[in-house]
Amino acid sequence: MINVGIIGSTGYAGENVVWILCNHPEAKIIFVNSHSYTNIPFNKIYGNFNGYFEDECISNSDMEDKLSQIDVLFLGLPSGKSFEIVDKANKMGLRVIDMGADFRLKEQKNYESWYGLKHESSHLLQNSVYGLCELNRENIKTARVLANPGCYPTASILAMAPLLKHMLIDNDSIIIDAKSGVSGAGRSASIGNLFCEVNESIKAYAVATHRHTPEIEQELSKFTEKDVFISFTPHLVPMNRGILATCYAKLTKVISEEELNELYSEFYKEEYFVKVLKDLPETRWVKGSNQCHISVRVDKRTNRVIIVSAIDNLMKGAASQAVQNMNIMFGLKETLGLEFFSMAP
Amino acid sequence: MINVGIIGSTGYAGENVVWILCNHPEAKIIFVNSHSYTNIPFNKIYGNFNGYFEDECISNSDMEDKLSQIDVLFLGLPSGKSFEIVDKANKMGLRVIDMGADFRLKEQKNYESWYGLKHESSHLLQNSVYGLCELNRENIKTARVLANPGCYPTASILAMAPLLKHMLIDNDSIIIDAKSGVSGAGRSASIGNLFCEVNESIKAYAVATHRHTPEIEQELSKFTEKDVFISFTPHLVPMNRGILATCYAKLTKVISEEELNELYSEFYKEEYFVKVLKDLPETRWVKGSNQCHISVRVDKRTNRVIIVSAIDNLMKGAASQAVQNMNIMFGLKETLGLEFFSMAP
Amino acid sequence: MINVGIIGSTGYAGENVVWILCNHPEAKIIFVNSHSYTNIPFNKIYGNFNGYFEDECISNSDMEDKLSQIDVLFLGLPSGKSFEIVDKANKMGLRVIDMGADFRLKEQKNYESWYGLKHESSHLLQNSVYGLCELNRENIKTARVLANPGCYPTASILAMAPLLKHMLIDNDSIIIDAKSGVSGAGRSASIGNLFCEVNESIKAYAVATHRHTPEIEQELSKFTEKDVFISFTPHLVPMNRGILATCYAKLTKVISEEELNELYSEFYKEEYFVKVLKDLPETRWVKGSNQCHISVRVDKRTNRVIIVSAIDNLMKGAASQAVQNMNIMFGLKETLGLEFFSMAP
Amino acid sequence: MINVGIIGSTGYAGENVVWILCNHPEAKIIFVNSHSYTNIPFNKIYGNFNGYFEDECISNSDMEDKLSQIDVLFLGLPSGKSFEIVDKANKMGLRVIDMGADFRLKEQKNYESWYGLKHESSHLLQNSVYGLCELNRENIKTARVLANPGCYPTASILAMAPLLKHMLIDNDSIIIDAKSGVSGAGRSASIGNLFCEVNESIKAYAVATHRHTPEIEQELSKFTEKDVFISFTPHLVPMNRGILATCYAKLTKVISEEELNELYSEFYKEEYFVKVLKDLPETRWVKGSNQCHISVRVDKRTNRVIIVSAIDNLMKGAASQAVQNMNIMFGLKETLGLEFFSMAP
Repeated sequence: MINVGIIGSTGYAGENVVWILCNHPEAKIIFVNSHSYTNIPFNKIYGNFNGYFEDECISNSDMEDKLSQIDVLFLGLPSGKSFEIVDKANKMGLRVIDMGADFRLKEQKNYESWYGLKHESSHLLQNSVYGLCELNRENIKTARVLANPGCYPTASILAMAPLLKHMLIDNDSIIIDAKSGVSGAGRSASIGNLFCEVNESIKAYAVATHRHTPEIEQELSKFTEKDVFISFTPHLVPMNRGILATCYAKLTKVISEEELNELYSEFYKEEYFVKVLKDLPETRWVKGSNQCHISVRVDKRTNRVIIVSAIDNLMKGAASQAVQNMNIMFGLKETLGLEFFSMAP
Repeated sequence: MINVGIIGSTGYAGENVVWILCNHPEAKIIFVNSHSYTNIPFNKIYGNFNGYFEDECISNSDMEDKLSQIDVLFLGLPSGKSFEIVDKANKMGLRVIDMGADFRLKEQKNYESWYGLKHESSHLLQNSVYGLCELNRENIKTARVLANPGCYPTASILAMAPLLKHMLIDNDSIIIDAKSGVSGAGRSASIGNLFCEVNESIKAYAVATHRHTPEIEQELSKFTEKDVFISFTPHLVPMNRGILATCYAKLTKVISEEELNELYSEFYKEEYFVKVLKDLPETRWVKGSNQCHISVRVDKRTNRVIIVSAIDNLMKGAASQAVQNMNIMFGLKETLGLEFFSMAP
Repeated sequence: MINVGIIGSTGYAGENVVWILCNHPEAKIIFVNSHSYTNIPFNKIYGNFNGYFEDECISNSDMEDKLSQIDVLFLGLPSGKSFEIVDKANKMGLRVIDMGADFRLKEQKNYESWYGLKHESSHLLQNSVYGLCELNRENIKTARVLANPGCYPTASILAMAPLLKHMLIDNDSIIIDAKSGVSGAGRSASIGNLFCEVNESIKAYAVATHRHTPEIEQELSKFTEKDVFISFTPHLVPMNRGILATCYAKLTKVISEEELNELYSEFYKEEYFVKVLKDLPETRWVKGSNQCHISVRVDKRTNRVIIVSAIDNLMKGAASQAVQNMNIMFGLKETLGLEFFSMAP
Repeated sequence: MINVGIIGSTGYAGENVVWILCNHPEAKIIFVNSHSYTNIPFNKIYGNFNGYFEDECISNSDMEDKLSQIDVLFLGLPSGKSFEIVDKANKMGLRVIDMGADFRLKEQKNYESWYGLKHESSHLLQNSVYGLCELNRENIKTARVLANPGCYPTASILAMAPLLKHMLIDNDSIIIDAKSGVSGAGRSASIGNLFCEVNESIKAYAVATHRHTPEIEQELSKFTEKDVFISFTPHLVPMNRGILATCYAKLTKVISEEELNELYSEFYKEEYFVKVLKDLPETRWVKGSNQCHISVRVDKRTNRVIIVSAIDNLMKGAASQAVQNMNIMFGLKETLGLEFFSMAP
């Protein structure tokens, strides 16, 4: 049994980790921590936990006392808030799964320029492991500080990796137009995310400036000799969950849709959580699951390939991928506690 | 292992039975039947089943050949469509769980006047069992033809039963104002249920004429000497799932909110799937689960009690209650395969 | 031309007043005031105003200087925030249209107990006028301090007034079950009104304790000798705008649905903004307009009448009724600037 | 006064023309026609018209008798259904505004290959006028058969025209990723557009094969010597109205965001209905209006320009642009009856 603590457990990503672990046969929640809801039972914040998980959220100071009882620490904190605690936990020998952004970018200056923050635990960057399970499984097994991927990067990288690995596209031609449900914006009180401000509308935001851009570029560049630079545009969609990434690139050779589809199917054939489908993905089919659906289209008229991928931003894009990483790190069956699939409608 | 066949499997209730049974440790799906999608793989209709359940839907005639291989038959058919097959299955010795309305009303004339249909298997009515598990468990154990309750009745009866059993209210004073998500309207193509016709609006419908009215009255009357007549108003809410029933009645004695709350807690204390809560229910906390949340309020100024209950109309209001009934009928642990709870947001 | 100032112009009610007055042929906006958005152009807060109204919001202190330039002051402030400014404006001879709750309840102690606030301008209560236009038109004409009705009361009182006036119901039997879109909760940052907390769910709130209860009772009691007490339950519905009130009462005499329908049609036959319809109301048909749709049903089995009414909570429930009141107060045609009707879908 | 007839008036585009013309000071509706709702009063189909427009829809045969009474005929019909009636109306000397696709593509073979239909009035193609008002105003004035632009093309062409006219981009590099509300899918009964099938999800559809592609290419090619070919991907968003087009292209020269912004502002400076804004567009700000909001971004890292445009698909993308065309064709002030702007929230 793996003993788990969760910091920032009342954010949407944290809460979904709690939800998954309540049903995980090899994990036990030792504590849930929350800065905002200290001493409040978890089910008073999230009523779905009534009868299932009713522990009180503990304070930061109480949590520090409990660190010695756990094997792994999950973090769901805003950018720049995890430096100290990750450092401490690491020194104590705990394994850390950070769902935030602080340990994803290997280049400190890259982090500091995109996030506008000084990195205060940069000594950990070299050994932190980027936790996109399907593409980095071997390194994850031994990771001490695991940087769980961002939601947009997960959908984007899974969509583009086969093309880059097989050198089928012009690396300068990549455009990723991504659409996210509102839970991606987190659970802090802000006028911009009020129901009436978001409902019945769609917008692009952070055009050409979104922080997930360098993360996607870093990971895609691993497949190529030349660094990859992309245009990335996120959009906000009036739905709770889901990310759809529509990815464009110029093909450098003639290849049919059927051939590409086979190449993708081959690339992901061993993966339980990635499905290459002929039908175009819809976020509703992956909502609430760790699944990623991918479909390939070739636009012969323009010689472009269009890859569409769909994930649940809080699941494969955060909490369930974090648990998938835990399973890998602790030598468990990778799918343990994550076999559930989306409910419709 | 219980062998199961599902008729009308591509309606929302049927599809949710398939979903639940895919994860049920003691049930095996032998066939899924669909009139509209014969020979189409289930995952091509519901993409969430990709990789999980990819059987083709079989035709009515093929299904008849397979009846001998199953132990229990689930039906999710429109009113008036199940008479013949239920009769046949019953004669073959199969146990039947009908999620439709055809066997819920014990009085044939009641059925015929509210549904405007002739009942063609009225000989089965006497022994059919109304499957509201928490209130009729003993009879369910031996049921051959199980009439799974309607969604509105499930929420309404669970809300009102304790008051009637304890004779705390004026039976003539009951008003149930219920609100349902759109999946309650089914999955047939109709202009009225198009996204743009339903979204951003709320309406009452079938005021004083809804077919679930006599079903609620029949079951509530079991608790009283005098027949209960209620005013029941359903409303359509722009959300996929969920029913909220706001139930009003005049108290016949002075009783505090605290006392009533205790009385309800006592009434449901052994029930895994019913939670009596101090906080008012919200459908989001039960969505996707077999849970029913109930809260009690007393309006001292008017001496009324207001009971609010919430269920998922497709789960406790249809598919998961059907599986709960199966568990009871086959002597399994009642909660088997139904322990999952709602995911938020 | 009427010169207008608007306090609290960036709340949803205030903003809708600005919207209406931009198209009103006899009104001119002299200033818009906002505590939170001082010196910010209106179109930077609400992008729909680009090219239409781009004035900066002025501060409270700048506003006081401009009071002398206006004829009428609209207020859209939280409870308890308008005492001082209304008193001052009134003394200056301005006419005041308060969309808040501070001058609606004639009994100071009623206000103080339901709102939990001390009333600091109680000397104005005696002469303040309740602005439900269709029922109080004569008094509105000369009003100096006009208390614009609450959203729930507008829908509820218009629905119930004909029954009470004609003494057709048992006054103790009234239950109003109301459903509101989320804009009714205002535009302040709160977790409870975030998209992901409200979407895909419905809940009742403030059961038996909502502040609009005494307002409804006060106005309905004007039609009767004995004070009316009601049970009122508001619900939150995942849509931007709209209120549906489902109102129940026991009939004290036998009357058919047709007769009642005629009686309602007669009662409102001169009213441009109230339509008595045979079809049940849906909020989408009145959304974005000053219309109120009402439909009558008789439940013969229980001898109850059910009245369903629909308005737009921000329009007839706030801003457009406020402008309707302005038209009456200044002797303009009552429908001026308010003829627009709902756009579908 | 212009006498108007509307064919296909109960589709969403047709209904919005009716809505606009009810408030248009120089137009009079002589008849509304509907195949599906013959002899049904308009307000029984669309309840928002109660008290505003209650004419019965007339049949196709009755309509033909009334053609002689009108000056202009609006059509809102499916592809391939307008050939005969347009030909007839044209011969009678009526002016025709076709909101469908049948007269948009000048090349018959282009139409026939993308739409899979034989063009039966191809003799009218040469003189039909593409009605994107801002870019083709002079030709519209004398148009007899006016092809009202598609919704996606309107948003896309307005976004890209300035770049092409000023030869700032690589014409082969254009990618348009567009997102539409559900009303774009029309009002016919289909399972795919049911609330529960569309809500809480986003998908791409018709990737590389959407019929609006050649229409965009045709119009953009007018600005260049070499034909333009684009990649166009439409998406379905769970909201009633609105289109957001996110358009990408490679810059062929170094130009700053500020310079581009000025160039766009200059290009559209005389246009009442197009606003070039610094803030990124959101569909909510144009919903229910004839406005188009455009914003420009330069991604220096990749030397790409990203143009985001927003319109209401039923308004500037269909009905209100059709009325704008009518105004131009009849020498009225172009903005007549179209000055209304979006209501928020």
